[in-house]
Amino acid sequence: MELGFVGLGKMGRPMTEHLLKAGHRVHVHNRSRGVVDELAAQGAAPASSAAEVASRAEIVMTCLTNVQSVEDVYFGPSGLYSAARAGQLFVDHSTVAMETSRKCADGARAKGGEFLDAPVSGGPAGAAAATLTIMVGGNQAAFDRAMPIFQVLGKNIRLCGPTAAGTAVKLVNQLLVAINTVGVAEGLVFGLKAGADPQTVLEVVGTGFGGSRMLERNAPLAMDRNFKAGTPVSLLLKDLSLIGDLADQMGVKLDIGRCAERIFAAARDAGLGDDDMAGLVRQYEQAAGVEVRR
Amino acid sequence: MELGFVGLGKMGRPMTEHLLKAGHRVHVHNRSRGVVDELAAQGAAPASSAAEVASRAEIVMTCLTNVQSVEDVYFGPSGLYSAARAGQLFVDHSTVAMETSRKCADGARAKGGEFLDAPVSGGPAGAAAATLTIMVGGNQAAFDRAMPIFQVLGKNIRLCGPTAAGTAVKLVNQLLVAINTVGVAEGLVFGLKAGADPQTVLEVVGTGFGGSRMLERNAPLAMDRNFKAGTPVSLLLKDLSLIGDLADQMGVKLDIGRCAERIFAAARDAGLGDDDMAGLVRQYEQAAGVEVRR
Repeated sequence: MELGFVGLGKMGRPMTEHLLKAGHRVHVHNRSRGVVDELAAQGAAPASSAAEVASRAEIVMTCLTNVQSVEDVYFGPSGLYSAARAGQLFVDHSTVAMETSRKCADGARAKGGEFLDAPVSGGPAGAAAATLTIMVGGNQAAFDRAMPIFQVLGKNIRLCGPTAAGTAVKLVNQLLVAINTVGVAEGLVFGLKAGADPQTVLEVVGTGFGGSRMLERNAPLAMDRNFKAGTPVSLLLKDLSLIGDLADQMGVKLDIGRCAERIFAAARDAGLGDDDMAGLVRQYEQAAGVEVRR
Repeated sequence: MELGFVGLGKMGRPMTEHLLKAGHRVHVHNRSRGVVDELAAQGAAPASSAAEVASRAEIVMTCLTNVQSVEDVYFGPSGLYSAARAGQLFVDHSTVAMETSRKCADGARAKGGEFLDAPVSGGPAGAAAATLTIMVGGNQAAFDRAMPIFQVLGKNIRLCGPTAAGTAVKLVNQLLVAINTVGVAEGLVFGLKAGADPQTVLEVVGTGFGGSRMLERNAPLAMDRNFKAGTPVSLLLKDLSLIGDLADQMGVKLDIGRCAERIFAAARDAGLGDDDMAGLVRQYEQAAGVEVRR
């Protein structure tokens, strides 16, 4: 099948590589050119704009970092919808505001095409291993059409409801990721000061009621002092801002979510914005005068 | 073996029943008498005081609700240590302050006996299924001696370090339980308002990075409106108070932990103290005008 992929970053690049390996022809575009050339060497078809991708592909995926880049890629002068044709399917794997997902769906419909919001969870490691969780919003027919592609990229693939429902579920995921990440950071440092070895906390609390995916993910990264990998503080902060705005719009009380947002913001202000979210532990280590290690 | 068990509540009672079924003779005492008679009908030997239990048993377990009841049972005029003999082993499954665990260990040592702090995670359901996680502080010899008993009661059994290390790990567990419980409550209500069905959140976020044992535990209870079972808000609040005191003593910053404590306190003030911690979701439902249901 002729596919397109725009946004070839830490997520989009390994996703595109899986599609190439699965035998699809993939027309690719990215703001910075280097990765396009590298994927072309693996058999991808380079395109000089999002519009060019849309002019060639039947199904186009996007995986972008924020609302503005999604708006640009979909609605910009050389964007996807400038070249969209009836019958095309657009799939956005980015995490954006629900209103952005709705706007993209409306834009596709205006061209006679279809749109699915399909944000993913699992990070670069999940993208590389093709084990992403994919949360989809849209209609059943479009979902069924995209399923063979989703199955190349992920494991737990779910139509969550109509347009923007995938984004809604992803935002809940991000809210819990952020809260649990701060909890793990506090818990590891509190425990260390109290005499609870981090590895023991991981192994024991991890099987108790305090267990979470963030404990399993972040505790080893903290113990290894590996804060380069994966999902940066600044990305979560972007999501927490989307979540806070939506909560305000809906009149939903977010106590611990706001608290997590303040702590992520403090970490960014302390210069940790580009570090993996597991690096949040350093905010607590510094105050307590200890360091989580193996 | 002649065992003793003092504190036959939601946790201690099923634990004692497992010890009886495993063929041990168990001398039992409880502040309220009814459960003593019921366990006597299952073969337990009733005792009229903690001292009487200590006078008859070789290894004595306790499972009590707070620091004060542990102090009373161990150090009171008819308490365990009033009748303790050299060579006895005392095992406290309660969740208390680290200084309480240390005091109990000192008290046992003064009598020529030994003490293990051995708090458990898994709640009444884990106690009934004998799948408790048991976090132990003390010396290796005492741990080895207690192991055949622990194996009757739980699955993940760990010597975490010297005296009070079991309590330290348990407090980390409780901190994460409380934070994740509030996160799940906020996340479910936020999601519901945004169009994310709670069952979908459970199934999708539960396999994504937002997953936690509290999501798996609390979301079904919320959807079933089952807030009678398990671990009440007031019990977590007691643990959060122990955690906060210890953090103050150690100079550890607890941001999101304090936030969780405030929300648990607000739930208690709203009359939810005796409800299961999953009932915290109602605090958010009321504000948002929705209800999490299947």
